[in-house]
Amino acid sequence: MPLAIDILTLFPRMLEGFMAESILGKGIQAGLLAVRVHDLRSWTTDKHRTADDRPFGGGAGMVMKPEPVFAAVEQLQTSGCRRIYLTPDGVPLSPSLARELSEQSHLILLSGHYEGVDQRIRDRVIDQEISIGDYVLTNGTLAAAVLVDALARFIPGVLGEEKSLTHESFTSKLLDFPQYTRPAEFRGMSVPEVLLSGNHAEIEKWRQARALEKTRQVRPDLLN
Amino acid sequence: MPLAIDILTLFPRMLEGFMAESILGKGIQAGLLAVRVHDLRSWTTDKHRTADDRPFGGGAGMVMKPEPVFAAVEQLQTSGCRRIYLTPDGVPLSPSLARELSEQSHLILLSGHYEGVDQRIRDRVIDQEISIGDYVLTNGTLAAAVLVDALARFIPGVLGEEKSLTHESFTSKLLDFPQYTRPAEFRGMSVPEVLLSGNHAEIEKWRQARALEKTRQVRPDLLN
Repeated sequence: MPLAIDILTLFPRMLEGFMAESILGKGIQAGLLAVRVHDLRSWTTDKHRTADDRPFGGGAGMVMKPEPVFAAVEQLQTSGCRRIYLTPDGVPLSPSLARELSEQSHLILLSGHYEGVDQRIRDRVIDQEISIGDYVLTNGTLAAAVLVDALARFIPGVLGEEKSLTHESFTSKLLDFPQYTRPAEFRGMSVPEVLLSGNHAEIEKWRQARALEKTRQVRPDLLN
Repeated sequence: MPLAIDILTLFPRMLEGFMAESILGKGIQAGLLAVRVHDLRSWTTDKHRTADDRPFGGGAGMVMKPEPVFAAVEQLQTSGCRRIYLTPDGVPLSPSLARELSEQSHLILLSGHYEGVDQRIRDRVIDQEISIGDYVLTNGTLAAAVLVDALARFIPGVLGEEKSLTHESFTSKLLDFPQYTRPAEFRGMSVPEVLLSGNHAEIEKWRQARALEKTRQVRPDLLN
């Protein structure tokens, strides 16, 4: 059984193009994972399909109401599924977390108002809270898309060749080394000679040195 | 003049739904920002519309070729525009960076293969490299969408009310406090009494304490 992912969102159309295109779209078409996008308003019961309301205690913004989310999660959940809420105050997404999620059988992703869902949702029908980065979005739908994209890469067959998972940023705790492709000379700029040398040991040494240099420069925090 | 954003991507359709929906879609329709999505292959010149090739020096994956990107950037760029490459080895996106970008007049966002574009592109036609988080995506298109969403929130008028920008994760270096909305009682779970008290000083104190508690628990790194 391929990994099944249910995404709960107020903006299902945001994800249409994302699901159809790119490497992820191909993986879905090939049956390597199944992603279903649900409009949370389908689980509202009033005439106005109310999914949010003002926060108790005051403050700006709207907070997602508990009823539709509880109803949706309770209808969709399966035994052993993991229910995830995308939120800026969650645990940061990392490659190891993405890999771990790719090995599950069923994920439910709640994309709420990024600034708030009723805390009772988080207390009762969410198993894990994940953040894609230290910034705030207009809502969690893009965050769910990012999570799906990041984890899909670890599903065997989704990346055409069983490729780049070895050599890429973060797998070695270093940022990536510079890449070059044809033409070898472009507007007077040449590809570093070592890369054309065919000497694999030298190439590896050069790449390691560049990766370390770049990491020191841009992200010294990764070296601690 | 509203902020103009040009997105260069190999997967323009990925962004269609994103542009039409949600708060961002409304901002675009209201003319508060202008986002144009371009297919990078429009700037290729060969019959097969080749935009990438194998890396010099070996290794898996494909690297974006310099010619189409140089041509696209040179056609679109304006004086004073900022040319940004989305890459996992860039500077991490933060609310302050998002705000700064929202105050520019013109951004060009390059969404390449997330694992590599020819280094000469980065050396010559890119001003700033930005990462949305420490993980790898199948390509940079979602990263561009995240960047646009995160910065759009700082454009006056995009968020309906001039709202939640004061009270939200990261503006105070703390994660957000718990939010509650109606009903006050749901399946035996009650909203904390202080939030129903109308005592604004007490509410503020409670929220600060909860925010600090959550930050200590989930993201102690933010308190250093």
